[in-house]
Amino acid sequence: MAPPSHCHTINGGAPRNGAISAVETTSTPEASDTARLLDADEFRRLGHQVVDFIADYYAGLGDYPVHPSVTPGFLRRQLPVDAPSRPEPEAFAAALRDVRDLILPGVTHWQSPRHFAHFPASSSTVGALGEALAAGINVVPFTWAASPAATELEMVVVDWLGRALHLPERLLFAGGGGGTILGTSCEAILCALVAARDRKLAEIGARRIGDLVVYCSDQTHFAFRKAARIAGILREHCREIPTYRDDTFALSPSALHAAMQADVEAGLVPLFLCATVGTTQTTAVDPVRELCAVAARHGGVWVHVDAAYAGSALVCPEFRDVIAIAEAVDSLSMNAHKWLLANNDCCAMWVAAPSALVAALGTEQEYILKDAAAEGHDVVDYKDWGTTLTRRFRALKVWLVLRCYGVEGLRSHVRSHVAMAAAFEAMVRDDARFEVVAPRRFALVCFRLRSPERLGGEKAANELNRRLLEEANAASSGPYMSSAMVGGVYMLRCAIGSTLTEERHVREAWKVVQERATSILVNVANWVQTSR
Amino acid sequence: MAPPSHCHTINGGAPRNGAISAVETTSTPEASDTARLLDADEFRRLGHQVVDFIADYYAGLGDYPVHPSVTPGFLRRQLPVDAPSRPEPEAFAAALRDVRDLILPGVTHWQSPRHFAHFPASSSTVGALGEALAAGINVVPFTWAASPAATELEMVVVDWLGRALHLPERLLFAGGGGGTILGTSCEAILCALVAARDRKLAEIGARRIGDLVVYCSDQTHFAFRKAARIAGILREHCREIPTYRDDTFALSPSALHAAMQADVEAGLVPLFLCATVGTTQTTAVDPVRELCAVAARHGGVWVHVDAAYAGSALVCPEFRDVIAIAEAVDSLSMNAHKWLLANNDCCAMWVAAPSALVAALGTEQEYILKDAAAEGHDVVDYKDWGTTLTRRFRALKVWLVLRCYGVEGLRSHVRSHVAMAAAFEAMVRDDARFEVVAPRRFALVCFRLRSPERLGGEKAANELNRRLLEEANAASSGPYMSSAMVGGVYMLRCAIGSTLTEERHVREAWKVVQERATSILVNVANWVQTSR
Repeated sequence: MAPPSHCHTINGGAPRNGAISAVETTSTPEASDTARLLDADEFRRLGHQVVDFIADYYAGLGDYPVHPSVTPGFLRRQLPVDAPSRPEPEAFAAALRDVRDLILPGVTHWQSPRHFAHFPASSSTVGALGEALAAGINVVPFTWAASPAATELEMVVVDWLGRALHLPERLLFAGGGGGTILGTSCEAILCALVAARDRKLAEIGARRIGDLVVYCSDQTHFAFRKAARIAGILREHCREIPTYRDDTFALSPSALHAAMQADVEAGLVPLFLCATVGTTQTTAVDPVRELCAVAARHGGVWVHVDAAYAGSALVCPEFRDVIAIAEAVDSLSMNAHKWLLANNDCCAMWVAAPSALVAALGTEQEYILKDAAAEGHDVVDYKDWGTTLTRRFRALKVWLVLRCYGVEGLRSHVRSHVAMAAAFEAMVRDDARFEVVAPRRFALVCFRLRSPERLGGEKAANELNRRLLEEANAASSGPYMSSAMVGGVYMLRCAIGSTLTEERHVREAWKVVQERATSILVNVANWVQTSR
Repeated sequence: MAPPSHCHTINGGAPRNGAISAVETTSTPEASDTARLLDADEFRRLGHQVVDFIADYYAGLGDYPVHPSVTPGFLRRQLPVDAPSRPEPEAFAAALRDVRDLILPGVTHWQSPRHFAHFPASSSTVGALGEALAAGINVVPFTWAASPAATELEMVVVDWLGRALHLPERLLFAGGGGGTILGTSCEAILCALVAARDRKLAEIGARRIGDLVVYCSDQTHFAFRKAARIAGILREHCREIPTYRDDTFALSPSALHAAMQADVEAGLVPLFLCATVGTTQTTAVDPVRELCAVAARHGGVWVHVDAAYAGSALVCPEFRDVIAIAEAVDSLSMNAHKWLLANNDCCAMWVAAPSALVAALGTEQEYILKDAAAEGHDVVDYKDWGTTLTRRFRALKVWLVLRCYGVEGLRSHVRSHVAMAAAFEAMVRDDARFEVVAPRRFALVCFRLRSPERLGGEKAANELNRRLLEEANAASSGPYMSSAMVGGVYMLRCAIGSTLTEERHVREAWKVVQERATSILVNVANWVQTSR
C-alpha cells in the first residue's frame, strides 16, 4: 500500500482494524514553486485529505492501545539525520502515511475513550476545527489594531464563558475586570503573580523582592512553584502548607494565617496565595472564601484561584458550593482544554484589576502600529495581558464551542462524566477489597486496594497498588490510569474526561482492575504463605 | 443568502468578489447528544466545510483591504451578551457565515499579499494543515511518556532545522546541546534568562538577584525587557546601550564592555546579553562573535541571540556572515512562523547546556506518570525546557513543512522575498525624493521622503513621513506598511514576507507610496508658499 517514502515505515502498533485509509493521487509542491505555497486549490486538495485522515483516526481511536509500548529512541532511530533537501515525490501523502505508520503508533492517545490518566483532554469536533480555522486565518492579534475582530471576539467570549461559569461580574469586562485566553495555567498563574509582585514592590521598594513570600498547599500543582521560580521568588519563600486527609486535603485557613503571621513577624512580606479548586491529585477544593478573608488581613495578599480542571464544572449550577468561591478573588484561571471541549491549548484567565496586569506586563514601542480609529478609546491590547507578544486567535475556537454546543451542551458533557465517575465509585465501594481514598466531587475517583492482613505496613500497600496500576495499564486494550501519592498513601486515579468515554469503557476498565487485583492478591497470599 | 443567525450579520467590508461560499445543508450536534461531540462522520462533514471555507478565503484574500476600517466596539456591539443556552439550528454553518460576514471583515489580513507591516506572517498550506492535524490528534506531550513519538519528533526536527540553518553542532542534540519548539521568542528569551539567572545565583547566592544586570541595545525587541521584568531583574538593571546610524544600528562591543566594566566596578553582576540578528526596526545585525568575546571576559555572561525574524535567512548559505555568528552563543531562538512557512505560533530555541534549563525549570511530582520503558534512559521531558507544562505538538507542523517543501524550498521562499525587497529598494533609490534610511540586508526596506527644503527640521520631516504612511495605508486596495523611529528619525518599513506577495504587489505598493508622496508634497509646497 505504501510506496517507499522518505522515512522507513514500520509495521506493528497500528490499530487492529487499520482504519486510516492510504492517501493517494497527490502531487507535491515543487521546491521552486513558491507561488503554490498558499494556493487555494492546493489547500483544498490537501486539506480534504487531512480531514479524512483525522476522521479515520477518530473512527479507529478506540482500538489503539492508549499508551504505546515503545522504548526511548524508537522514532529517532527511524528518521534521517537531515531534513530532505528537496521534497520526495508526493511528499504530503508520504508524510501522512508516516504519521499513520510511524507517529500514531508511538503517541499516547489522549482522546482514547480508555484514557483515564492525568486529566484527559476533553476535545471536540468543533474545538479541533476551531483550531484549524484559526491556523488557516493565521492572524496575530497582539494589539487591537493588529486584528480588531480577534481582540473583540476574545473580550466577548471571556465574558460569555465567565457568565456561563457563574463568575462574579467584577471579574468580567462588563463589571470592570476582564479576561484573556492564554495557552496554559502556568502562564495564567505567572501573569497574576508578576502583576501582584510588581504592585507590591511599587509599595515597598523594588529591592525587596527577596522578602516576598508566596503560599500554596502541598497539593497545589507544580505550575505554581514553577511560576514562582520564574518570577524570582526565593525558593525558600514558597510556603507549601501541609494538608490532611481529615480535611479532604484542602488548605486550612488557620494554617495559612499562622504561616503568614510567622512571616510577618520575621520581617517578610506575604504576597500571593495560589488556592486550588480541584487539585490535580484528588480534586480537593480549598475553602477560598475563608482563605480570602485571611489574605485580606495581611495587607492585600493577591489571591489567585487555579481551577485548571474543576473550573469547567462551574458551568453546572448544582456545584453551587464551588461556584460561591470566586466572590472575592483577585484572579482565576481554568483550562477549557481540560474538560470543556476546547482542544489543546486553551486557558481562560480573569482578573479583577486588569490595570495591575498591564502595569507589570505592558509594552510600548514605536514600531507597534497604532490605529487612528482606536485613539481616545480604551482598547485592550492583549500583548499587555500576558507573557508573550505574539499570540494565536484562540478566541475563535472558544466562541465556536460555546456557539455550537451551547451552555446546556457543556453542562451535559460535564454531567455525563460526573455520572460515570459516580458509577465507577459505586463499583469500587461494592468490592470490599478496595477503598475510595479521597472524596469524589467531580469526575475523578481516587481508590486503592486495601492492604491485605499480614502483608505489612503502608509501604507494602503502596507497592501493591503500584503494581496494580502497572498491570492494569499494561493490558493493550485496557484502561490507562495514573496515580497520586498523598499523605504517604499511594492511590490509583481514574479520571473520566475523554469525550469518547462511554459507560461501557468505565465498566470494562473496572473489570480489568478487578481481574489484575485478583491475580496480584493470589500471588501475595502465596508469598505470605511461603514466607511464614 | 444567510438565514437569521445567532449573531446579527452585517453587510459591507467583505471582499469585493465575495468568494467564500455559503455553507448549507448541515445539522448541528444536539446539546444532549454528547456521543456526537467527537464523532468521525460529523468531523468529516464539518471538516470538509472548514477546508472549503479556508480555501475560499485564500482565493479572495488579495481583494480584502489588508486592514479593516472599523472602530473599537464594532464587533462587541453586534454580539449577544451571553453565550447561547442551546445551539441554534445548524449552528456550525451559521457560525461559519458569521466568521465570513462579521469576523473576517474586521481582522487585519496578515496573509494578504499586500501586508508589508511588522514582519508579515509567512504561512503555508502545509503549515496550516500541520496545525489542523496536531489539533485533531490533540496529544499533550509534556513528558516523553505522555506521548513518546511527539517528544522524539520534536528532538529530530530541532536538529533538522538547526542543521538547515547552519547552526553549530554544539547547539544540537547531536552535539550535546538541544532544542525545543515553543510558541514565541518571548518564551524562549525568558527560558534562557531564567536558566542563566539561576545558574549565576547558585554561584553568588540567591539573595543577590537585585545585583544582576542584563544588557541589550536600544534596538532590542521589547520581548527582552518583558522577559527581564518577569524574571525579577530590577528595571533599572536593564542596560539599553545606544546604537548609531553610522554603526548600522548594531550594538557596539566596546560600548558593551564599558557598560559591563562600570557595573562590575559598582559591585553589580553582569548576567545576560540579548543580542539580535535582524532587529525589528531595521533588521540590524549585532556583531555577535565580538560581543561573545566581551561577555566571556565578564565571568561567563550568558549570550542569547534573538533571531526571531532573520533566523530564517540562515537557511541560505549566501548569508555566511550572519551564519558565522552562532559559534559561541549559549542559546539562540528564531520564529519559524515569521518567515519559514510555519503558521503561528512556532519559535525554535536551541541551548548549548540543556542542563541549565532543566535545573531552573524542571519539575518533579508523583502524579506525573513515568514509563518503565524510559527508566535508565536519558529521556527529554519537554515540560522542563519551557515555562509551561501543557504544550502542543508543534513539532508535527515543522516536520511536515521541512518534509514537504525541503530545505531548498525554504531557500527559494526566503530568496524570492529578498529579491523583491532588493527590487523595492532599487525603486526607492531611483526616486530622488526618497532615501533608504538603513541598509537593507534581508527583506525589509526602511525608507522615507527626504525633507523638502524650507519645510523645517527633523520634526517636520517626521510628520511628513507619518502622514505619508497614514495615507498610503488608507488606500483600501493599497499596501499596509508600518514604521520605525530610530535615532530620532521616523521611517516607513516595507517588510516583504507574506507568502502570497508577488512582484506586482511590490510594484503596486511603491506606486501608491509615490502617488501619495506627490500629493502630499504639492500640499506642502502650497503651504510653504502661503506661509512665506
